[in-house]
Amino acid sequence: MKQSVLQENRDFAAVNRDYFRARKITCINLVSSPGSGKTSLLERSIRELKPLFPVAVIEGDQQTSRDSERIGKTGVPAWQINTGLGCHLDAKMIHGVITSHPVPANSILFIENVGNLVCPAMYDLGETKRAVIMSVTEGDDKPAKYPFMFHSSDICVINKMDLLPYVDFSIDQAVHDLRHIKPEIGILYLSVKDGMGMEEWIKWIRNVHKATA
Amino acid sequence: MKQSVLQENRDFAAVNRDYFRARKITCINLVSSPGSGKTSLLERSIRELKPLFPVAVIEGDQQTSRDSERIGKTGVPAWQINTGLGCHLDAKMIHGVITSHPVPANSILFIENVGNLVCPAMYDLGETKRAVIMSVTEGDDKPAKYPFMFHSSDICVINKMDLLPYVDFSIDQAVHDLRHIKPEIGILYLSVKDGMGMEEWIKWIRNVHKATA
Repeated sequence: MKQSVLQENRDFAAVNRDYFRARKITCINLVSSPGSGKTSLLERSIRELKPLFPVAVIEGDQQTSRDSERIGKTGVPAWQINTGLGCHLDAKMIHGVITSHPVPANSILFIENVGNLVCPAMYDLGETKRAVIMSVTEGDDKPAKYPFMFHSSDICVINKMDLLPYVDFSIDQAVHDLRHIKPEIGILYLSVKDGMGMEEWIKWIRNVHKATA
Repeated sequence: MKQSVLQENRDFAAVNRDYFRARKITCINLVSSPGSGKTSLLERSIRELKPLFPVAVIEGDQQTSRDSERIGKTGVPAWQINTGLGCHLDAKMIHGVITSHPVPANSILFIENVGNLVCPAMYDLGETKRAVIMSVTEGDDKPAKYPFMFHSSDICVINKMDLLPYVDFSIDQAVHDLRHIKPEIGILYLSVKDGMGMEEWIKWIRNVHKATA
């Protein structure tokens, strides 16, 4: 049963991937714990990217459309998926959105997954790249304790660096564990609040988008 | 399939609950996002409770035995369950631990669930009470966005209050949403770091234990 669910997901992910490639859409799947700052990072990223490229967002949450309302205020299209009891987005849900809404060609499409460091790891959405966000307030042991998510990601954004002086978080420990789980993972130090690392993050997205186009 | 999984879980939960009642064991299931401070709260709680009652801990994690090693240093028994790809503990796993290890009678048994605000909500472990921990660094929108977990809990501990001055977190908003989801939920403001709220938390546990005995 589980295997057939994952197989169906892989099939839809392949269709989504073809769809994105054909339209030169860069799709970035943002995954993290609840409360790591994904939505704030998105708001700020959209402000910086909007003058350069078309941008759109798919928001995943168990309940509420608060995040898509927040994103809607940035002036880009934001489509909400409520998963109800579900713990992750899957490729079929994304397929439903992209085939019923006008995702612009040559755009950057962000997917904000349900806040969950476990289940979304297993569900390829057909995205171009996966970015895992962790915040320093969560503790440096998160990569070691939730290795599958970090292993499945292309880049790890260590967020809320402005709070580093107030918490026990060893950058060395986190990076050591990240490199052990996935030597080639990108690592970025960022604070949405004070802007640290934003330039590098935007540059990473632009490079991904250049490779897509 | 899903229904039969949940039914099997309910059956094991009922057996666990009988087991705890017969031995006057108070079982507290701690659930939260990754990094909300469950393990630190546990360490401090154990230090305060150990002189009064037998205490034991079951630790759930995807990988590593770091938490059970941390808890082991407090001098109480700590048994680790690694869930691998799994996103939550279930009642059968707990049944396996309590029937193969000497959980003391009249004890307080803490279960530290896998860090996940979604999936553990649906899995009754047979616990006496469920406590959900959220930290102010996660944002005040967590109850509204993950309502099932908060609805399934008896008490909500709002942790890391020492960081409140450095983050955007409205206590009013969080409490408003919590009361909307579950009017009768207990709410405690706490900081493991500076000890705020610890007395009230320990008092709550002692009252639960008094009712068990």
